[in-house]
Amino acid sequence: MFDRVIKNGTVVTAVATYAADVAIQGEQIAAIGQDLAGREVIDAAGKLVIPGAIDPHVHLQYQLPRFRSADDFYTGTRAAALGGTTTVIDFVEPKPAQRMVDGLAARQAEADGRVIIDYGLHMTLGPHEIGKLEQVAEAYAAGCASFKLYMAYGMRLTDDQLLQALQAVRDVNGLPVVHAENWDVITTLIAQNLAVGRTEPRWHPRSRPALLEAEAAGRLMDIAGYVGTRVHIFHISCAEVVARLSEALRRGQPVTGETCPQYLMLNDGVFERPFPEAALPVCSPPIRTPTDQQRLWRALGQDVVSIVTTDHCPFTRAEKTAVPDDYSQIPGGVPGIEARLSLLYSFGVRAGHFSANRWVDMSSTRIAQLFGLQKKGQIAPGYDADLVIFDPEKEVTLSTETLHENVDWTPYEGVTVTGWPAITLSRGEVVVQDGECVAQPGRGKFIKREF
Amino acid sequence: MFDRVIKNGTVVTAVATYAADVAIQGEQIAAIGQDLAGREVIDAAGKLVIPGAIDPHVHLQYQLPRFRSADDFYTGTRAAALGGTTTVIDFVEPKPAQRMVDGLAARQAEADGRVIIDYGLHMTLGPHEIGKLEQVAEAYAAGCASFKLYMAYGMRLTDDQLLQALQAVRDVNGLPVVHAENWDVITTLIAQNLAVGRTEPRWHPRSRPALLEAEAAGRLMDIAGYVGTRVHIFHISCAEVVARLSEALRRGQPVTGETCPQYLMLNDGVFERPFPEAALPVCSPPIRTPTDQQRLWRALGQDVVSIVTTDHCPFTRAEKTAVPDDYSQIPGGVPGIEARLSLLYSFGVRAGHFSANRWVDMSSTRIAQLFGLQKKGQIAPGYDADLVIFDPEKEVTLSTETLHENVDWTPYEGVTVTGWPAITLSRGEVVVQDGECVAQPGRGKFIKREF
Amino acid sequence: MFDRVIKNGTVVTAVATYAADVAIQGEQIAAIGQDLAGREVIDAAGKLVIPGAIDPHVHLQYQLPRFRSADDFYTGTRAAALGGTTTVIDFVEPKPAQRMVDGLAARQAEADGRVIIDYGLHMTLGPHEIGKLEQVAEAYAAGCASFKLYMAYGMRLTDDQLLQALQAVRDVNGLPVVHAENWDVITTLIAQNLAVGRTEPRWHPRSRPALLEAEAAGRLMDIAGYVGTRVHIFHISCAEVVARLSEALRRGQPVTGETCPQYLMLNDGVFERPFPEAALPVCSPPIRTPTDQQRLWRALGQDVVSIVTTDHCPFTRAEKTAVPDDYSQIPGGVPGIEARLSLLYSFGVRAGHFSANRWVDMSSTRIAQLFGLQKKGQIAPGYDADLVIFDPEKEVTLSTETLHENVDWTPYEGVTVTGWPAITLSRGEVVVQDGECVAQPGRGKFIKREF
Amino acid sequence: MFDRVIKNGTVVTAVATYAADVAIQGEQIAAIGQDLAGREVIDAAGKLVIPGAIDPHVHLQYQLPRFRSADDFYTGTRAAALGGTTTVIDFVEPKPAQRMVDGLAARQAEADGRVIIDYGLHMTLGPHEIGKLEQVAEAYAAGCASFKLYMAYGMRLTDDQLLQALQAVRDVNGLPVVHAENWDVITTLIAQNLAVGRTEPRWHPRSRPALLEAEAAGRLMDIAGYVGTRVHIFHISCAEVVARLSEALRRGQPVTGETCPQYLMLNDGVFERPFPEAALPVCSPPIRTPTDQQRLWRALGQDVVSIVTTDHCPFTRAEKTAVPDDYSQIPGGVPGIEARLSLLYSFGVRAGHFSANRWVDMSSTRIAQLFGLQKKGQIAPGYDADLVIFDPEKEVTLSTETLHENVDWTPYEGVTVTGWPAITLSRGEVVVQDGECVAQPGRGKFIKREF
Repeated sequence: MFDRVIKNGTVVTAVATYAADVAIQGEQIAAIGQDLAGREVIDAAGKLVIPGAIDPHVHLQYQLPRFRSADDFYTGTRAAALGGTTTVIDFVEPKPAQRMVDGLAARQAEADGRVIIDYGLHMTLGPHEIGKLEQVAEAYAAGCASFKLYMAYGMRLTDDQLLQALQAVRDVNGLPVVHAENWDVITTLIAQNLAVGRTEPRWHPRSRPALLEAEAAGRLMDIAGYVGTRVHIFHISCAEVVARLSEALRRGQPVTGETCPQYLMLNDGVFERPFPEAALPVCSPPIRTPTDQQRLWRALGQDVVSIVTTDHCPFTRAEKTAVPDDYSQIPGGVPGIEARLSLLYSFGVRAGHFSANRWVDMSSTRIAQLFGLQKKGQIAPGYDADLVIFDPEKEVTLSTETLHENVDWTPYEGVTVTGWPAITLSRGEVVVQDGECVAQPGRGKFIKREF
Repeated sequence: MFDRVIKNGTVVTAVATYAADVAIQGEQIAAIGQDLAGREVIDAAGKLVIPGAIDPHVHLQYQLPRFRSADDFYTGTRAAALGGTTTVIDFVEPKPAQRMVDGLAARQAEADGRVIIDYGLHMTLGPHEIGKLEQVAEAYAAGCASFKLYMAYGMRLTDDQLLQALQAVRDVNGLPVVHAENWDVITTLIAQNLAVGRTEPRWHPRSRPALLEAEAAGRLMDIAGYVGTRVHIFHISCAEVVARLSEALRRGQPVTGETCPQYLMLNDGVFERPFPEAALPVCSPPIRTPTDQQRLWRALGQDVVSIVTTDHCPFTRAEKTAVPDDYSQIPGGVPGIEARLSLLYSFGVRAGHFSANRWVDMSSTRIAQLFGLQKKGQIAPGYDADLVIFDPEKEVTLSTETLHENVDWTPYEGVTVTGWPAITLSRGEVVVQDGECVAQPGRGKFIKREF
Repeated sequence: MFDRVIKNGTVVTAVATYAADVAIQGEQIAAIGQDLAGREVIDAAGKLVIPGAIDPHVHLQYQLPRFRSADDFYTGTRAAALGGTTTVIDFVEPKPAQRMVDGLAARQAEADGRVIIDYGLHMTLGPHEIGKLEQVAEAYAAGCASFKLYMAYGMRLTDDQLLQALQAVRDVNGLPVVHAENWDVITTLIAQNLAVGRTEPRWHPRSRPALLEAEAAGRLMDIAGYVGTRVHIFHISCAEVVARLSEALRRGQPVTGETCPQYLMLNDGVFERPFPEAALPVCSPPIRTPTDQQRLWRALGQDVVSIVTTDHCPFTRAEKTAVPDDYSQIPGGVPGIEARLSLLYSFGVRAGHFSANRWVDMSSTRIAQLFGLQKKGQIAPGYDADLVIFDPEKEVTLSTETLHENVDWTPYEGVTVTGWPAITLSRGEVVVQDGECVAQPGRGKFIKREF
Repeated sequence: MFDRVIKNGTVVTAVATYAADVAIQGEQIAAIGQDLAGREVIDAAGKLVIPGAIDPHVHLQYQLPRFRSADDFYTGTRAAALGGTTTVIDFVEPKPAQRMVDGLAARQAEADGRVIIDYGLHMTLGPHEIGKLEQVAEAYAAGCASFKLYMAYGMRLTDDQLLQALQAVRDVNGLPVVHAENWDVITTLIAQNLAVGRTEPRWHPRSRPALLEAEAAGRLMDIAGYVGTRVHIFHISCAEVVARLSEALRRGQPVTGETCPQYLMLNDGVFERPFPEAALPVCSPPIRTPTDQQRLWRALGQDVVSIVTTDHCPFTRAEKTAVPDDYSQIPGGVPGIEARLSLLYSFGVRAGHFSANRWVDMSSTRIAQLFGLQKKGQIAPGYDADLVIFDPEKEVTLSTETLHENVDWTPYEGVTVTGWPAITLSRGEVVVQDGECVAQPGRGKFIKREF
């Protein structure tokens, strides 16, 4: 007699689809079988039972100089859970003089009382961290198995810093995760555009050319190849990066990449809309052409791009449009933490781009493996009972009414998805039931990751 | 209380590794869980519990004009089971005037009383079948979901026949499986060699150049691409085919490939040995260079080559050396049905070419998916309880003493593997225990396959 | 005091453009210089002085079972000369029992009294020649330095024959020139189309898919690579062959290719016209898509495709439309011998695809080098004075009125070119002046070619 | 009656080889012909008559912080002329506050009284020039048609500066010529090596990995591709750059590359010699592996690498070994200005890597075209009579005895070449006769270049 049994559902894992009950004992999966008995029974007839989605790229209550991302650890993880995500990985950015583990502790303190679901943290290695790379091992030991490196923005590492950071991460067998764009070129193009009065958001993609995103990704792979470390490329937006990633994989280089729903669902037509609508979807890398969109869907099917994350980083309409005459001052980022799983099901699985098994793989199983989440992403005894009972026929029309992200717009306004979570469980506990979050803030835990 | 529970083992699937018990009810897996109770218990402490291996490319009691392959359905499937294989797929070759399904029935009749484990059959479409391609649907419906096409030997299809065969298989959503070599070139090179007295086995690889194997594979992919059908390439032996397969995958073409232990473990030095030793490993395509060997191991790790099969087709020393002065008359084929799983574990997993999960994938899970074996290749409730309790530390030195293939030599004589099956179960029944086959001939069943 | 001096022109060679006089003594170029004096002066002010074009792929009075190509050696070479071509290479097809050199002599006898300009002959190695490959050396010695191999039509060589033919040509250091299509596939597709009543010319390109042309070209390059011989691919029609040729060049394989004006100027829309118009441009390989057209122009600029020839093989309207209900019986071939040089100038040089130097290269200099024409294709002392005074500004609207090919239609009807020969000289003699052929039939000579 | 006629020689141009006399009137070629008469006759029987070689990459009296390259404009151009080079292109490096054209005038003043042969100058655009890019048009108009950009050393441009420089050069239709290495990575690797006591020259190549040279070349091509400008890559040293260049050419990008004799003739074994010998060949990029050597020879034959220059930059043994315990302080550069043409003939043409025509092309004709030398590089009327009478059979063993570079070592010590210039003419004047320079310093002229 198990604590709880999910009965009558269709289990979908990364490699198989079959009818079975899933039994939970305490916080973990205890058995998968037929006719399992539980003190509590969840009926999953007609539903898919899948491992909870994992979102390894989110920015909750992320403090920029002028703004803070609109979702905090509570609202953000609540929206995540409502969309079927049971683990997120956010970021630590140590202060210049701060020890990495102190930065980690501080960030954990911000999250711990608020999170609905479990979370991990990437350690950011910015220019200030290059002088303290000897702390990388300590950060790894504290559970930050992955390290964020920027090739753009104020956190940008020059190539010598990038080299040193990659060496340090390699030495602890950590995973570097990288924002790859050519910052020098971007800043020049922005300056050139603004100098001639090109201030509208349509100049945003024209300031961050796909070819130069590919240049940065290629440079990263070259330096990582020289260093002899694996590397993960964040938010791939375009066909040209896919081509170079594919070539690297063909050579046998240990490199992985992700894309995000905004690059799959939208195209650069959004920047041609009248202000303020064109300002809202500003994010970096920018949303690209329809050709790029199609290439990304195919790359997911071919497993050239391995996973899908969100880069969730919402700002309000007021924040996005605060500086109407300079596109480069629009805070970058779009919401997406809630709808990812359903968007991929509707427009990936249903549209024939990939199987339901690959859908589970790219949104959960592979992510757990890639980021060192030892107890997540599988439906198997001993793993955390992070599970989603997914209703494959439920239709939801996305809008700020139906979504729970703490922001007054969504890039998917009016999009109807078929397939939505009915129930989300986190470590055996029902946290979402029929569209209601029924869990208490702070119940989520920091997960130490390792390889 | 299950019929039988495998306890204390480490379950290894294509995507996960975890401690769990596996319960069997009747012929099927009933549950995976912790602390499962069974009327009968198999202790798997210190062992790996994996889905039984599947070998979709074997030639048992295969009748050539002068010889018959040395293993019949009994000895062959016994050796397979002893090595951890629980399903094999052999071939039907209808007679010229015979209906395909009648050929199928005849072949089933040869197997049914003898097989220790389950088996499937590919339907061969030779030149005679081109005139009866309307029977393909019937063959498919009878459980032959895959169709063997030869581009070499007497069964060779010319390109027009190949085109028609591929169209017919496409129309029933079947899987074409193809022996790809350029027969015209091979026969010419053999004639040219023999004409100048080059009769030794060392001229065998020189008569079947890797570049022309690649030509044939490339031609096949082009014609299949035009027809719009998936295709599976049998026994890839060389880097050049890997390169073209990789390129096709990059384009998104639905093509898969296999290699075999002889191409992974041996190199063309074997043909430079003195007669008769050089005659024994003659098989087609031939065993290639060390560079090709290395490329094949890498290709398995990269999932460019998807699976490993054996092309098991043993002939005795006497048969292999019956015509000492003409290498082209040596009956082609090597044994391998027993050691495949352990060779891949020892020289693949232990040597670091790929993970234990990928090992399970390439020897079982992926094969089941690829060939339409709906109830095989997974450890999940409802699947056939075809399971292997694999002892990862057991050392076995391969020889005709330790192997059970019905043939008086092995290409792996003296090779020591670390890792060997302790117990093999087929549909819930223990068929091999501690190196002994404990099952009765004929207990295996023909498995109807479909997509 | 030279016999004749071309004064005031702009000399254009494959590598340079400069103002200079060109002096002729007897049949050869004697000097290039300034202020050269001649007994006879040709004023080339405002004109380009270029080496006469060479067309190494023509079919004059070519006997098919039912028809003979409409231009004989007189009308064909006259049209060639009028268009600025001073050498053509046609074909010998020995009869089954005939010695190759006897076939050569017979073909020379057909040409010798008729030709206006010099000519060479390729020796065809058809299936009957495979039994007499020992004659290849004799044919080479007789001046046939290149050998035509068919992978299609009745002359088609199977791969074993192709292998043997390539070996034989390699052994004399000759050049194989090959029609590469997959004949088995083509005949099957034709049969399938006709069987369902698809008889219109629009099924012609659909019976000869670009992908299978690429297959054949790739197979040819593989076999030639194995044999270790250079090879020249005739009439490349599509992007897919360009891709494989480009890849082979990147590997360093000695392979060259040509395309023809019909593949550059037309697209497969021509086959969608109403009958009989759709029947006229039927040729093989077929005319392809606009995308293929663009790729071919680029490939010429990149020197992936080296040269442009015509495959001139005209049939009359009556002949092309004699069998209205079976596209496969339309005699294949289009006229083009006259307009090639001007089409390339107008739509290649003027349109910016390549320089005037490359134009001279692809239509003359490179062809001479590639085909062993030791005294042709250069403006330099000692070379044959085969020269064209080309008026770069002359406009000509192509039509059966303005062209002199002996056929009642042209695929370029209504096309206006800018740039046309004013004067053509062959071995120092003016053969065309202001659009008039002023030479006597039979003045041209057979040119022995060698490497 | 011409001023001077070179009689009885074999003229070799980039596309043809033929017997002809070459007549000179004043400073220019007046005629190429047979039996030309001159007031003065040079007998070239048994010799090749070729356009004078052009070396577009030399550093004469180049001032580094501590050293100056050992050849000044006199000794350097004298050695060049003795080796068959008739034009060099050196560099202008404006001072920070100096106008480009003033820097040009100053550099011309250093050269004008000293040069034996004609010369051009590249304008260097260093970091200081980024603020004065509006002067690029003026520099171009003054004859600097090409602009040197550094991605390494103190002159290194960051990517934003590189972008701006490329835009400015594109706007005047100039040619950017670039030293492509990843300076950030190099400086880090040097620091890491020195920090652990790796001070020997063998750490020089290990501080400048081939993969990162390729990264820089790839980045350059990406940025140039975005800008829409052609670009020329200096001193390619390795296979990996060749691969990326080849790929760019396949895409149709207008990019060219050069290599130098040191990368063709030497391999990185030179850095394993005992000090001081290992210090002498230090140059950047470093000399690479034998595999890289072979790839470079092939790339010249395939015309993937277009031309060969020297990057002549000699320092004396004393200078090269002044800092024995820090390889990074060795002044970089090797001599080579004299032997290039003969090395390419001996080890390129004679060894079968390419034809004599391609040799002329890569050392003269193509260089003239690529760098805007309108009157150089051809044997044709109206071009400057810069000619070399090359003795293809003359053997010279290279050493400081036989070479005339003003430096006490050569990387080619003891190498015997077959083929050496007998006579060098510059604008019609014999400047070298039988190994003696017979010309006066200052007779050479600055050549304004343009496109």
